[in-house]
Amino acid sequence: MLYLVWFKIRQPESLTQRHLMQIWQREAEAALPALKQGVIKGLWKVSGKREVVAVLDVNSHEQLDEILENLPIMKEMGYGVDIEVYPIHPYENFYELVKKLAT
Amino acid sequence: MLYLVWFKIRQPESLTQRHLMQIWQREAEAALPALKQGVIKGLWKVSGKREVVAVLDVNSHEQLDEILENLPIMKEMGYGVDIEVYPIHPYENFYELVKKLAT
Amino acid sequence: MLYLVWFKIRQPESLTQRHLMQIWQREAEAALPALKQGVIKGLWKVSGKREVVAVLDVNSHEQLDEILENLPIMKEMGYGVDIEVYPIHPYENFYELVKKLAT
Amino acid sequence: MLYLVWFKIRQPESLTQRHLMQIWQREAEAALPALKQGVIKGLWKVSGKREVVAVLDVNSHEQLDEILENLPIMKEMGYGVDIEVYPIHPYENFYELVKKLAT
Amino acid sequence: MLYLVWFKIRQPESLTQRHLMQIWQREAEAALPALKQGVIKGLWKVSGKREVVAVLDVNSHEQLDEILENLPIMKEMGYGVDIEVYPIHPYENFYELVKKLAT
Amino acid sequence: MLYLVWFKIRQPESLTQRHLMQIWQREAEAALPALKQGVIKGLWKVSGKREVVAVLDVNSHEQLDEILENLPIMKEMGYGVDIEVYPIHPYENFYELVKKLAT
Amino acid sequence: MLYLVWFKIRQPESLTQRHLMQIWQREAEAALPALKQGVIKGLWKVSGKREVVAVLDVNSHEQLDEILENLPIMKEMGYGVDIEVYPIHPYENFYELVKKLAT
Amino acid sequence: MLYLVWFKIRQPESLTQRHLMQIWQREAEAALPALKQGVIKGLWKVSGKREVVAVLDVNSHEQLDEILENLPIMKEMGYGVDIEVYPIHPYENFYELVKKLAT
Amino acid sequence: MLYLVWFKIRQPESLTQRHLMQIWQREAEAALPALKQGVIKGLWKVSGKREVVAVLDVNSHEQLDEILENLPIMKEMGYGVDIEVYPIHPYENFYELVKKLAT
Amino acid sequence: MLYLVWFKIRQPESLTQRHLMQIWQREAEAALPALKQGVIKGLWKVSGKREVVAVLDVNSHEQLDEILENLPIMKEMGYGVDIEVYPIHPYENFYELVKKLAT
Repeated sequence: MLYLVWFKIRQPESLTQRHLMQIWQREAEAALPALKQGVIKGLWKVSGKREVVAVLDVNSHEQLDEILENLPIMKEMGYGVDIEVYPIHPYENFYELVKKLAT
Repeated sequence: MLYLVWFKIRQPESLTQRHLMQIWQREAEAALPALKQGVIKGLWKVSGKREVVAVLDVNSHEQLDEILENLPIMKEMGYGVDIEVYPIHPYENFYELVKKLAT
Repeated sequence: MLYLVWFKIRQPESLTQRHLMQIWQREAEAALPALKQGVIKGLWKVSGKREVVAVLDVNSHEQLDEILENLPIMKEMGYGVDIEVYPIHPYENFYELVKKLAT
Repeated sequence: MLYLVWFKIRQPESLTQRHLMQIWQREAEAALPALKQGVIKGLWKVSGKREVVAVLDVNSHEQLDEILENLPIMKEMGYGVDIEVYPIHPYENFYELVKKLAT
Repeated sequence: MLYLVWFKIRQPESLTQRHLMQIWQREAEAALPALKQGVIKGLWKVSGKREVVAVLDVNSHEQLDEILENLPIMKEMGYGVDIEVYPIHPYENFYELVKKLAT
Repeated sequence: MLYLVWFKIRQPESLTQRHLMQIWQREAEAALPALKQGVIKGLWKVSGKREVVAVLDVNSHEQLDEILENLPIMKEMGYGVDIEVYPIHPYENFYELVKKLAT
Repeated sequence: MLYLVWFKIRQPESLTQRHLMQIWQREAEAALPALKQGVIKGLWKVSGKREVVAVLDVNSHEQLDEILENLPIMKEMGYGVDIEVYPIHPYENFYELVKKLAT
Repeated sequence: MLYLVWFKIRQPESLTQRHLMQIWQREAEAALPALKQGVIKGLWKVSGKREVVAVLDVNSHEQLDEILENLPIMKEMGYGVDIEVYPIHPYENFYELVKKLAT
Repeated sequence: MLYLVWFKIRQPESLTQRHLMQIWQREAEAALPALKQGVIKGLWKVSGKREVVAVLDVNSHEQLDEILENLPIMKEMGYGVDIEVYPIHPYENFYELVKKLAT
Repeated sequence: MLYLVWFKIRQPESLTQRHLMQIWQREAEAALPALKQGVIKGLWKVSGKREVVAVLDVNSHEQLDEILENLPIMKEMGYGVDIEVYPIHPYENFYELVKKLAT
């Protein structure tokens, strides 16, 4: 099942930009292999904002929590991360429902 | 350049569900070929909400407006569509910047 | 997979209270058997508000949309219904993750 | 009388994820027996969010405050917990009112 | 059990001020006897706003809905009324809990 | 003149629950006598929230500020208190205006 | 007692700009004499917004409602007016309280 | 040119009420002479809130910033002050425009 | 004096996209000459939104209202336009103030 | 491609006004040459608010992030800066689209 997960990072006053980016680098180095292996279906940075959008394919709601709480950025500075979760599915599948409702 | 575009559809009181879905069907029949041809990079329905998320690759800000105003759903019921636009780029590109800032 | 679904009903100016309640009666008469059969896991009215909270067990995000768009109240007055969807899972399952993260 | 109670946990900057989860483990170990004994009627984790939804059956508004202020998580880190309370009742009971109003 | 109920009245464009006040007069003529009889514990108009605050003593969440949906203003123009409900209890009772928690 | 005053207490991270409740106890011990003497016309705790609703009768806007800034909770932890103020008057008085406007 | 009253005018779709301004002209022709006579202590238009700020001196909360509901703009298009009310007092009076609290 | 400037003061946790009021006293002692000299056209405290409303007459947008940043309260605790600025003009001047638009 | 003015256009349900754009065309044909003559200092469309940002140089707050209410889009469909106004000044002028405050 | 970038600066409690302005001076001394060279197309201070509006011309979304993260104010106190980004284009280009849609 697909979920769009929107991460918003708030820099705490106790961290310098460099320190924040070192944590973010560890986060990215965990995320990018998962993207290449297809576990993460899409992964983008929002320009000008410290926000990241991911499309994840997970088997259960328990697994979704497990993945998110084990991200390096959550383990290191979870107090500075806000997460929004949206259940999604491919538009072509929705089109099948639309056709039924339209007739 | 990539943009994440989030569409929120409000059903006007003057349209039945069937009529709304007929408009949406025309919209989908325009969008799905563009998805297959790679013009649209990703396209999802948000479950339980009348909302759609798209990842678009456009050449200019003028073109972005032109594409959106020419969507069937905008031409037929633009008064019922709210759009949010977010400039994005691939996370692997952002990783290059993160590494520079982390050192 | 479990979802908490929160319905907010807005009475349109074109409907009397009686007419609204006749639609709601048809909605309830479809929902209550599903509650007894265990398809709906929980179903409550929010006191003093025209809002309903449901716990649904669905197999896919496509099915969630199909169920919601086929509710009598969505077919008859979808323009007056706002829906929020929250993926949830039993707290006892979350406890397993908490224990791992706490050690 | 039933209440839906929605807990939102904010991780304070002074706590590590592990420490937060140790507090949450104590909270869960108090809540899960009450769930089995039927005092708590329903209890779910919101996936991807540090939020918990409970359905509680209480005898008075005084008791509701007493239960909530005595939760381990309130005693240990009440400054990091936001609570929303919604009076609810079973949808089948509301159906009785709907039928009266619909005629 | 006590509830603070906050009513916000929106004048629909289809009603003149006089017509709105005629509905409100019928509402007041139902509410004021209940206030004298002690069913309603307190009842105030918010100055400068079309808002009313009531303190109600009800026996159940079902009864709360029944009372509210049977108000003249809900029966005549429920599409123009927003209601917020807050469970409350006398501060002197809360003081008993405070003393326990303070020691 | 009557004012409905709504207090929202935020527990600062530097205070334990016990310490917060000790301050609140001093606050209550100042408020309850004023309630009995009729200076405070009504006083309730919002269940499940750290919020208090008061109905105050004051002679001037200067006096309202003077009363509020001299509350023990404002003197001890004013940084953790948000206050909303609503001018109100008895509904029976408003009824006199409604009758005039309705004719 | 002084109140700052903030009016926000929404043009309904059923009125042309000219018609709206004719109503507003009647409103102004009632307000300006009251300003000259000192009943209204201050009266300004917010530039670029259809909003007006007034400082009113009233004797009671009942009178405040009576004045506002009898404004020409409320009588003619009350469905298009939102009002915010703030009890205020002269800063020099507040200064007396500040000095006491500062010592 | 006139501006309505709305100050909202947040008490930082590091300041006692007395300390806050000492800063506010210095602020008031700078503001009140300017009020008497007519530089400040109006100045009020919002009752029950730590908010102040001023009507200022300034010659340029540069001067507006200069005045505000040089206030004692901004120099001493600018981190605890939120400011909203609204360009305004006398209602009688707006009346001239209304008459033109109404014809 | 410079103002940044942000226009948000809502398409009313009674207008087709073509009709909306015909009004917008008349608006643009009035605005573009003023841009060339330097009365309007900057003028941009927000991509993907029906929003326009303008930088205007006006002599008084009265003139700002006069300009805005005389725009073709305000005269023809003012009920569908929301406007935000921000007083601004060139950053190089602000730099002069910054230098003073920094020493 | 043009972007309107809106900076909102929050003064942290740990910085005096003078220290904040010293950082801002370094920021301005980096920004003003870029404005003169035409890299920054427009740059304004919002009067009365600690906010800055810029119009930037960038080649890619990667470059936009690179520019913003390398601003002196982001490097020194990024925890106190909120940024909003809006893709924009010249109104005269939008006019070309309007004309097509209007016919």
